[in-house]
Amino acid sequence: MKHSIEMTNSLRVNRGQATDWYSRYESTRHLSERILAPLSAEDCAIQSMADASPTRWHLAHTTWFFETFLLKSLAGYEVYDVSFEYLFNSYYNAVGEQFPRSQRGLISRPGLKETLAYRRHVDQAMADLLAAENLTPDQSQVLAIGLNHEQQHQELMLTDIQHVLSCNPLDPIYQPDRVTSENLSELSWISVDEALAWIGTDTDDFAFDNERPRHRFFLDAYRIANRCVTNGEYLAFMSDGGYERPEFWLSQGWNTVREQGWRAPMYWSRSGDGWNQFTLAGRRPVRDQDSVSHVSYFEADAYARWAGCRLPTEQEWEYAVLQDLPSQASPNPRLGDAIGNLWQWTASQYIAYPGYRPPPGALGEYNGKFMCNQFVLRGGSHATPPGHIRPTYRNFFPPEARWQFSGIRLARNFDLQDSQCEAG
Amino acid sequence: MKHSIEMTNSLRVNRGQATDWYSRYESTRHLSERILAPLSAEDCAIQSMADASPTRWHLAHTTWFFETFLLKSLAGYEVYDVSFEYLFNSYYNAVGEQFPRSQRGLISRPGLKETLAYRRHVDQAMADLLAAENLTPDQSQVLAIGLNHEQQHQELMLTDIQHVLSCNPLDPIYQPDRVTSENLSELSWISVDEALAWIGTDTDDFAFDNERPRHRFFLDAYRIANRCVTNGEYLAFMSDGGYERPEFWLSQGWNTVREQGWRAPMYWSRSGDGWNQFTLAGRRPVRDQDSVSHVSYFEADAYARWAGCRLPTEQEWEYAVLQDLPSQASPNPRLGDAIGNLWQWTASQYIAYPGYRPPPGALGEYNGKFMCNQFVLRGGSHATPPGHIRPTYRNFFPPEARWQFSGIRLARNFDLQDSQCEAG
Amino acid sequence: MKHSIEMTNSLRVNRGQATDWYSRYESTRHLSERILAPLSAEDCAIQSMADASPTRWHLAHTTWFFETFLLKSLAGYEVYDVSFEYLFNSYYNAVGEQFPRSQRGLISRPGLKETLAYRRHVDQAMADLLAAENLTPDQSQVLAIGLNHEQQHQELMLTDIQHVLSCNPLDPIYQPDRVTSENLSELSWISVDEALAWIGTDTDDFAFDNERPRHRFFLDAYRIANRCVTNGEYLAFMSDGGYERPEFWLSQGWNTVREQGWRAPMYWSRSGDGWNQFTLAGRRPVRDQDSVSHVSYFEADAYARWAGCRLPTEQEWEYAVLQDLPSQASPNPRLGDAIGNLWQWTASQYIAYPGYRPPPGALGEYNGKFMCNQFVLRGGSHATPPGHIRPTYRNFFPPEARWQFSGIRLARNFDLQDSQCEAG
Amino acid sequence: MKHSIEMTNSLRVNRGQATDWYSRYESTRHLSERILAPLSAEDCAIQSMADASPTRWHLAHTTWFFETFLLKSLAGYEVYDVSFEYLFNSYYNAVGEQFPRSQRGLISRPGLKETLAYRRHVDQAMADLLAAENLTPDQSQVLAIGLNHEQQHQELMLTDIQHVLSCNPLDPIYQPDRVTSENLSELSWISVDEALAWIGTDTDDFAFDNERPRHRFFLDAYRIANRCVTNGEYLAFMSDGGYERPEFWLSQGWNTVREQGWRAPMYWSRSGDGWNQFTLAGRRPVRDQDSVSHVSYFEADAYARWAGCRLPTEQEWEYAVLQDLPSQASPNPRLGDAIGNLWQWTASQYIAYPGYRPPPGALGEYNGKFMCNQFVLRGGSHATPPGHIRPTYRNFFPPEARWQFSGIRLARNFDLQDSQCEAG
Repeated sequence: MKHSIEMTNSLRVNRGQATDWYSRYESTRHLSERILAPLSAEDCAIQSMADASPTRWHLAHTTWFFETFLLKSLAGYEVYDVSFEYLFNSYYNAVGEQFPRSQRGLISRPGLKETLAYRRHVDQAMADLLAAENLTPDQSQVLAIGLNHEQQHQELMLTDIQHVLSCNPLDPIYQPDRVTSENLSELSWISVDEALAWIGTDTDDFAFDNERPRHRFFLDAYRIANRCVTNGEYLAFMSDGGYERPEFWLSQGWNTVREQGWRAPMYWSRSGDGWNQFTLAGRRPVRDQDSVSHVSYFEADAYARWAGCRLPTEQEWEYAVLQDLPSQASPNPRLGDAIGNLWQWTASQYIAYPGYRPPPGALGEYNGKFMCNQFVLRGGSHATPPGHIRPTYRNFFPPEARWQFSGIRLARNFDLQDSQCEAG
Repeated sequence: MKHSIEMTNSLRVNRGQATDWYSRYESTRHLSERILAPLSAEDCAIQSMADASPTRWHLAHTTWFFETFLLKSLAGYEVYDVSFEYLFNSYYNAVGEQFPRSQRGLISRPGLKETLAYRRHVDQAMADLLAAENLTPDQSQVLAIGLNHEQQHQELMLTDIQHVLSCNPLDPIYQPDRVTSENLSELSWISVDEALAWIGTDTDDFAFDNERPRHRFFLDAYRIANRCVTNGEYLAFMSDGGYERPEFWLSQGWNTVREQGWRAPMYWSRSGDGWNQFTLAGRRPVRDQDSVSHVSYFEADAYARWAGCRLPTEQEWEYAVLQDLPSQASPNPRLGDAIGNLWQWTASQYIAYPGYRPPPGALGEYNGKFMCNQFVLRGGSHATPPGHIRPTYRNFFPPEARWQFSGIRLARNFDLQDSQCEAG
Repeated sequence: MKHSIEMTNSLRVNRGQATDWYSRYESTRHLSERILAPLSAEDCAIQSMADASPTRWHLAHTTWFFETFLLKSLAGYEVYDVSFEYLFNSYYNAVGEQFPRSQRGLISRPGLKETLAYRRHVDQAMADLLAAENLTPDQSQVLAIGLNHEQQHQELMLTDIQHVLSCNPLDPIYQPDRVTSENLSELSWISVDEALAWIGTDTDDFAFDNERPRHRFFLDAYRIANRCVTNGEYLAFMSDGGYERPEFWLSQGWNTVREQGWRAPMYWSRSGDGWNQFTLAGRRPVRDQDSVSHVSYFEADAYARWAGCRLPTEQEWEYAVLQDLPSQASPNPRLGDAIGNLWQWTASQYIAYPGYRPPPGALGEYNGKFMCNQFVLRGGSHATPPGHIRPTYRNFFPPEARWQFSGIRLARNFDLQDSQCEAG
Repeated sequence: MKHSIEMTNSLRVNRGQATDWYSRYESTRHLSERILAPLSAEDCAIQSMADASPTRWHLAHTTWFFETFLLKSLAGYEVYDVSFEYLFNSYYNAVGEQFPRSQRGLISRPGLKETLAYRRHVDQAMADLLAAENLTPDQSQVLAIGLNHEQQHQELMLTDIQHVLSCNPLDPIYQPDRVTSENLSELSWISVDEALAWIGTDTDDFAFDNERPRHRFFLDAYRIANRCVTNGEYLAFMSDGGYERPEFWLSQGWNTVREQGWRAPMYWSRSGDGWNQFTLAGRRPVRDQDSVSHVSYFEADAYARWAGCRLPTEQEWEYAVLQDLPSQASPNPRLGDAIGNLWQWTASQYIAYPGYRPPPGALGEYNGKFMCNQFVLRGGSHATPPGHIRPTYRNFFPPEARWQFSGIRLARNFDLQDSQCEAG
């Protein structure tokens, strides 16, 4: 129930967002620095793979966002360092050239100390701006995007630093008391009737452009699992030759399994007869009752096929969660861990909603240009900042990505009997 | 009108398929050898890139299909050469290990002469089987798949040999009189109303598993272009900096443009101030009125964005074409070149239809396992064998693929004014 | 004794070379076509790795050499096809651009038949030129280079076609009666005294530029093995963990062993408890008494280290062979298989002799520009054309190359006791 | 004259090395930390290419060397952290597995602070050991190797940090007052007569195994330049199309030029019509009178060919410098910048001297296993620690390496006239 409450809070906060921009700004920025706290300057300097970024880069880039899209055009604002425009631009071609993504780990300066000074400089200017209390609608919108953007990077800071630390044979610990979510309920199936559903959002509150426009989508009846797949269930797949039998895998997935030598989820390592997993709390035994995490789309899909089921489409996922919301007041929400446990891979490739048009200007590069060869994930994870997630929220990663906090929720065609479904 | 008539024929042939399997088998097999006729043994030996296969391999693999899935289990059938099971298996894991795809061009033996002897051996056994006239339903289905499979490879033989010949600075000619389709009609827009459409097929005739099951799909109103984009129109995109301006491109597409140095469609080369294009009829000037071909999804999508339009989804394409069919008796079909001109990239990534389940056994590997990181193309091309294509037919290739006969048809949201759409 | 006789013949032929150019030309060209005889058009079309070339390319390139450097400047000579200058230029920058080496296998035309017609055209023009009997000294020199060049390619045709055929799981046979050399003599050590030796050649007969100038080189006393290492001896190295123990290997060699997964010489494959090897006579059991072949420099060096010995330098090799020559009349030449058994890796990286200057013009690109990251091999192999090899002859390949007919001859410091040398 | 005096000192220090191990240890270790002083924790964490290592790794690895080869076997010594054996072993297979070289930049912990604590721990134990004053001969030898080993890494710390800083578009400055060597003397040629020279060393003082044994080498007469090539001279080569004309380049060098897009020495960048170069003192204009540095063997060799000269062999270099030493007392040493200006590429590939045998045990992996595909450099650079260099000293790098402080000294055959040599 924890997660659904958070979600409700999030919606409440969203509704109030016009009233107290400054406290939202301050608390969001503060969370980034709380995430930073356990790390050394060296931890923050390393880029352990091309897909990840150094912590220090995340801290600077999120700051650059506010400076570039809000402060720079203000009379009297002094840019902290003009070279940062190039160094900390991620992918906005409209803003200018970008320092190559894969080389972010080659930049030792500005160091952590100066990066924090840069944050202070921008925070002060933002405080001045927000104190003036006369944001234009455009400014409000950019500010909301900036805050949500920083929240996205807060989760990436955690996924990326986990990867950095996992490269170290000393198994460093980020936070010893960091918890994983148990998953004690029995697996059961929630039936959803055929519907011409409304998908996406038309909220006046903040939502990303890729969640719009709200539109109709026809759904055949289906069933969806009440909780995520557990380590124990996934181990049964592994024991049954899951990683050795091509019949469960997409062709490209099977190639990846062989080329990368996958034998288990990411961060798992053999320990005697069992398995350990590297986490932000260090390396420790895999627990059967935890939700299986750090799996790729390929693994989620193969597991589902092995189990005689399939993954839900993103529309099935969204419609089921929204249907479930009215029942949250009851003591037994049926999709208890849909929000805030693990990102759940859906069967949907990431494409534009009908009628989608990217917003004009540089911010139009936010979502639309990535609509290719990615799959949609839904629901957020334990690392997603409170208040950031929504049922209509669309995350996306390539099918081979495993370093995110990603898990598996199963679905089935309605007419499929329990006896045909091993997981049933 | 030529193409729609062919399609109608195709449907008629399909309905009659039970009555005359042998003539269908014979004519399909014969077409492969007609395609072979202009080629030398060396032409047939070369694999010019990992995605393509040598002509000789296509000839052997399609033969292996009939031998493996129909003949091998027959009492008295003698396998031509047991090693062929390994050499000519494309990707059927259930049948056994496969010779690596990227190394098909390293195999000089069996040579062309022996490959044709292999075809004769299998053709004789198939003639005996079909003369017996008592195919089981399973055999009929496999035979239908085998014939459609060979037809698919007939188009691939042409796309692959064009690539082989294009690598040769001597500009060899495959067939001097090979034509491209002119596109003389003015561009106009066909309006389609909002609908809860039926998509896919439930035919008793042959259709691929990925076209099933027939299901409902909600469509907002939209407009679709009456014909494919022409070279002349595409040259305007190029002149306007199409390949230099990142704002038109998907992120991954823009990376591909830069890494591959794309400046024009595949097979185009500079000739003075103008452009030539390498075709099966040799290298010759690009003609404005021809449909632009050999473009990737990335290019199709970028062109559409430049034109203020978008690509149709596969459901929009299919519904429009099926709506248009009743009007074929009229002198002016509205989507005259939808079928049999060029494969048209759609905005839809290739995923399973709701309720899809791959067929059991080795043939279940036919379509489902490729549902990842590919986009759907519709409509067939001038190289698609007559009788092979249908409005529900789903082809698919990765977004960077350019060596197929692929073109562009535009669509627009219904409420978009003509003035907002440059192509209008 | 067979090999030394051939060598003597070769020297005699060389001396007579001015008198009968035409018969030398004709017999050299004829040998290329005898090598071609067992091959199909497809065999000749394939380039199985970037280092190798299709047979058909060798046939055309050697012809191009005569056309380019001898015929083209003659009044009245008609170039067969101007595009061949680009297609069949290997690496002569002074002649013009070259078709990329790694793409030679992508060119299906000109086919084998036309390639042979090209040879006929050039052969006729060469016959006319040589009939005139008034070659200038420059022409004579280029002709001698051209003939030696074709002889080099004759050996490459064999090494390259062996590689092509080895890629085929059907184990095709090039020539069923092709023999390997037995090595029945006991291993013994020939002592050579300290000397200020003359190395290289100043012959008036043909020799490559890299064999010149003749110069003094000081040699400490050393010992050199009377014969090449056998398969049986090499198997002892393998049994002793040769491929698993880094202490025997150069650092770069050990990396190669691990990256390539080397476990035995090239072309060896497991057969039950023993080994087979793929040869031009097909796949057959490894025989203990044969000289070990298809080893890289890395393997030769590691074997020598394991045996407590080392490889000879190229100067030690040359001086020993030349010292041995006067004793050839005796019934027991001491270095019986030095010439014409297998190319023997030396410890010498391939650099210029003191005072070396490359010849002017395009032919100056023949040898000098490859003096980097290659090791010298000496002695020729059973695939080297008769009359082509000399004691001063320097061949060279990168240390990882294994597809040549390369073997191992050991050497030792003079003061090293037999007891310290396992191979002794 | 500065450099030759240093060298003399160095020899004197070497002779006294038995008397004061502790002060040598202390001053050597102290220099590493002086090199560290201008760097931040982040600077020390980054590995900017696979060939380079993070500063922190150098600091730890050199410490590991003393711990592993001297301290570990002492009664009572407590290993600082057993995991460091794996983390900081560079390439000693005899000691155990190594953390992959290319991933040294992925390790954020132990951080700089703990690395320095590790140094203190080992320094204390070493102080205790050296205070006892009863080193065995083996211990003395290992200690001498350890000190020379750390000196080698001191130069690498500088070359590697220059590379790290050069990746940063902010052009960070390591030391603003860091100087480059001017080269004011006119180019002149020193003649050396034919000789049977003694090469290598048999000193009782420290020298690396690859400098031994001392042996005879025959040299034809030659000439060698009195100083290194200057930027001004090298710019003339560039202006004459040096990087565009294949005739000057080795085949592999020319491929590298094209693949890497080389247009100038490493670290040079265009600045208007001129050139800047990135140095440890930041980015600044290229000065004509400085010695050209950061060139590869390929560039040194191409420059020499363009100048109508060649590079000296390592034997020619060593013999000339040793001949020149007796004249050092005179006011005009003829090879004034041979020692301590820039490492000078020689024409010699790096192979073992006649009679060379690697020392037994793990330290035998020091030099011998790298004798492959590297060229010898002689003379040390301005970044080589005082007392480390000798005329017999052999450094080695692959021919494409440019990030070392490497320059060019020319040589010529004796009989080559000045008029044939542009550089003359």
